[in-house]
Amino acid sequence: MAPTSETLTPERILEATEEVLRRHGPAKATVVDVARALGVSHGSVYRHFRTKAALREAVTKRWLDRATATLTVIAEEDRDAESRLRDWLAALFAAKRSKAGDDPELFATYQVLTGDHGDAVAVHIDELTGQLARIIESGVDSGTFTTTDPATAARAVFHATGRFHDPGYARAWEKPGVMDDFTAVVDLVVRGLRAD
Amino acid sequence: MAPTSETLTPERILEATEEVLRRHGPAKATVVDVARALGVSHGSVYRHFRTKAALREAVTKRWLDRATATLTVIAEEDRDAESRLRDWLAALFAAKRSKAGDDPELFATYQVLTGDHGDAVAVHIDELTGQLARIIESGVDSGTFTTTDPATAARAVFHATGRFHDPGYARAWEKPGVMDDFTAVVDLVVRGLRAD
Repeated sequence: MAPTSETLTPERILEATEEVLRRHGPAKATVVDVARALGVSHGSVYRHFRTKAALREAVTKRWLDRATATLTVIAEEDRDAESRLRDWLAALFAAKRSKAGDDPELFATYQVLTGDHGDAVAVHIDELTGQLARIIESGVDSGTFTTTDPATAARAVFHATGRFHDPGYARAWEKPGVMDDFTAVVDLVVRGLRAD
Repeated sequence: MAPTSETLTPERILEATEEVLRRHGPAKATVVDVARALGVSHGSVYRHFRTKAALREAVTKRWLDRATATLTVIAEEDRDAESRLRDWLAALFAAKRSKAGDDPELFATYQVLTGDHGDAVAVHIDELTGQLARIIESGVDSGTFTTTDPATAARAVFHATGRFHDPGYARAWEKPGVMDDFTAVVDLVVRGLRAD
């Protein structure tokens, strides 16, 4: 049944947009395709997303944030900062890896979209490094970590572990030994944050 | 003057190959183009490099190794391991960055070639991590660094600093603040290697 103006939510539009992108690819998918998939006029879609670019940016942000939910929980847990940091980095790697491995077509589609919507990516990365900074800060408070500047340290940890969350490395994630490489880098950065 | 069979060295062929690649691009450049540029028959080129693939692999290896010469000197110097490590990482970053920035066309050409010749890249990376391992090992000997496994630590340092030498990040190297990001990561990994 086609959604009415009451049931046509932004979330339904974003779901349909992802499905259309998966089917047609980012080069060909249009707002008309999305409207058709929903059984509504394209005007109804434009009432929620003013332009095709706005719709694509929103669906990109939604995709990027799907992982962040789990990470937010870990970041806010009330336990030892070092184990939280390790779990957070492992959860980020696992989330990116499963996205790349489970649905490579959709992953490739979003690679194109993230390239076009750098702002959505920048916001996503700010949120992630913000979570890292809070974990590091709580570790400083409890005496586990020593750093005078948790924000800079968070950015450094994010960059140092980029090989294990940056989609450009997706092919390396399937190679044997990648978990050993990951553990070695995490051990190194945790030592780097730890009190002397 | 065209080289004779005595003066046609592998190095001259590789120089000409690089020039031909720069001019025609990796998709179009042929061994005949290289022979023509040298004023010799293509048979003369094949006497030194048995196949087009072998020639391309050799020119890729030569390009990759151009940076390594400076790094080898730093790795073998007889001074404090921490400052050698910092200088080595800075020299690697500077070498990659200037390659990408000074001659972007040739850089793009070699991006294609390194994709095709993974073995040459693997050998190059083994040489680099070998140098890192020797620096770390000498730091362990002198009591600057503590690690039971310099080879694993070297690989972790190489991976953790990938953002500052992996050509996939070339566009990020032009952004303001990249040197601060680099310093923050190097500080973090040096702390991670340092004695408690």
